[in-house]
Amino acid sequence: MRRRQGEERTEGRPSGFARRLLAEWRRRAWASAGEGVVVAVSGGADSTALLLALDELSKACLLDLSLTVAHLDHGLRGERSEEDARWVEELAGRLGHGVVSKRASVGERAGAGRDNLEQAARRARYEFLAEAARAAGAGAVVAAHTLDDQAETVLLNLLRGSGAEGLGGIRAERRLAESSEVLLLRPLVGWARRADTEGYCGARGVEFRADEMNDDERFARVRVRRRLVPLLETFNPRAAEALARTAELVREDAAALEQLAARLLEEATREAPEVVDDESAAVEDERAGAVDVSGARPLRVGVLAGAAASLRRRALRQWIARGRGDLRRVELAHVVAVERLLAGARGGRVAELPGGARVERRRGWLFFRG
Amino acid sequence: MRRRQGEERTEGRPSGFARRLLAEWRRRAWASAGEGVVVAVSGGADSTALLLALDELSKACLLDLSLTVAHLDHGLRGERSEEDARWVEELAGRLGHGVVSKRASVGERAGAGRDNLEQAARRARYEFLAEAARAAGAGAVVAAHTLDDQAETVLLNLLRGSGAEGLGGIRAERRLAESSEVLLLRPLVGWARRADTEGYCGARGVEFRADEMNDDERFARVRVRRRLVPLLETFNPRAAEALARTAELVREDAAALEQLAARLLEEATREAPEVVDDESAAVEDERAGAVDVSGARPLRVGVLAGAAASLRRRALRQWIARGRGDLRRVELAHVVAVERLLAGARGGRVAELPGGARVERRRGWLFFRG
Repeated sequence: MRRRQGEERTEGRPSGFARRLLAEWRRRAWASAGEGVVVAVSGGADSTALLLALDELSKACLLDLSLTVAHLDHGLRGERSEEDARWVEELAGRLGHGVVSKRASVGERAGAGRDNLEQAARRARYEFLAEAARAAGAGAVVAAHTLDDQAETVLLNLLRGSGAEGLGGIRAERRLAESSEVLLLRPLVGWARRADTEGYCGARGVEFRADEMNDDERFARVRVRRRLVPLLETFNPRAAEALARTAELVREDAAALEQLAARLLEEATREAPEVVDDESAAVEDERAGAVDVSGARPLRVGVLAGAAASLRRRALRQWIARGRGDLRRVELAHVVAVERLLAGARGGRVAELPGGARVERRRGWLFFRG
Repeated sequence: MRRRQGEERTEGRPSGFARRLLAEWRRRAWASAGEGVVVAVSGGADSTALLLALDELSKACLLDLSLTVAHLDHGLRGERSEEDARWVEELAGRLGHGVVSKRASVGERAGAGRDNLEQAARRARYEFLAEAARAAGAGAVVAAHTLDDQAETVLLNLLRGSGAEGLGGIRAERRLAESSEVLLLRPLVGWARRADTEGYCGARGVEFRADEMNDDERFARVRVRRRLVPLLETFNPRAAEALARTAELVREDAAALEQLAARLLEEATREAPEVVDDESAAVEDERAGAVDVSGARPLRVGVLAGAAASLRRRALRQWIARGRGDLRRVELAHVVAVERLLAGARGGRVAELPGGARVERRRGWLFFRG
């Protein structure tokens, strides 16, 4: 009897691809004792390989996970979109896993709101995955970003002049949303090349779906993939790995600095200022602001002024995020404007933030006015 | 009477190029009260423009500097090398500045020692500039690295997978050598494009010297300049500026972390360990090592083990540098090997360093054995 390749593999030693995934899973000490996990599957090579490998490891009893496949039909590819959804559902069923799929009208959504198409797609995807995790009672969502995605992200951020936050690229583990308990895991991002995922799908006899948007050179990411990365590889055949290594080092630096900046901010906001003894209406006004209406308590100038620039700016960024709720549209220039308020001895100065908030310096304190 | 362009400019408002140089000089609060300064001039567009602009600002009394031109003939270009030297001497003389030039046999030097050609050239240049500064009683050497050099350096380091130290690129100010009081200043590195230096030389009517090594695509830097940067500029016309901005942000991060790591190291080495109560010869041996023979005092495991990875590694790197005298050939892998000694409770473990030194863990301390 001729056995199917997939079955053959689950009975013997796991494939090289699955073994690397397992090593990563264990190295990061991710849960594997019966946990529910949502696997985001578009039907492309990367996410198909991810699903097949998690399936292989589960069936070989090397990972004890309860897999739910989640597929969002972005509604951007017409009939092909529906075919992709059916294909993913069929694959999940064949492997014996539950599947959640949904059709979103990303195009309409982008047209109606303030997001562009890419942002609208991303937002729809995250909402869908959060909902899928909730429905499945899953503690984690697993996504198939590869080392190639990592290299591309680092390069795109570099082209924008990003600091460590952007250069750090894609994290292998983070919360799905800031306030969520659900983790977003990316077990392929540190090592898997696109050739690996395609090769593994081939070895498993699964013909993944092609996404022609991956060939559309109007997208900067596609041009980075097809033109820039190959040129970099003429300098160093392992350029993508080098970029990923840089990203990891820079990410560690940023994490350490964020932590230290949080401590600095804590120190700078420890004591609220005494009520200001001044009769002008401006100060009355400001006294109201000094009350902790926003999440940003007044900040002592002296504590921040003496800190290293990169700590000071991170602390200010965290403080602004507390005051505004987020950092949307806050650029380095805004942070630098607030930073300038720290210099010298003169109070009564103001820095404007996007969306109407502003920061005032008075009597040795910065006040956030939401 | 027809005046020469150079003279004309020194009488009026300084040129745009010189004004930007002046703004940078003032922003960085560099000395300008009669100080002696050595200007490193190869004869190429960048260093010629630097010399012409410093000369213009001096003669316009906007900077009060006593300029000495320094030219090292690397002896790599045969007759052209000698012509370059004569050309620089002639230009310096015409402008009325002293000149020091020297011929080095970089090729022979590289053949005899352990340096490759590029390293040997660099070493010869630094020695020559230090000597020129000493002879001229100058407190600073000024070099003509541009924003293009900065972008190229960042990219070359990125292609190697460097962390923040490499990505930080070229600093605008540092010591010429670790133990030297002489500063190395690079006033063009934050803003001047190669087109600016060429344009300014042209406007001053000075035909700079061409270096055909700048066209030799066997050098990775030349390929970065001629192929990679132009491709990046199809994504972002200001890609070089973006790279320089990233470099500056990352450099600030690295500086803050180095400072914090130094404090951590100070804390971890504050108390020398008590004499170890053990009779084995190995421990006797090690006791001798525990004495501060090298510059690296024993290091308390507990203090470092709890710190963030990026601080811990920097502290270890600083400690290793103290023990060995430098970090030549010390790679991330070596630092990670030492870092592993910090994990767990078990002593008696050893990590090897290049050149024969090693680090041992015993009784909660790391010992450096030179």
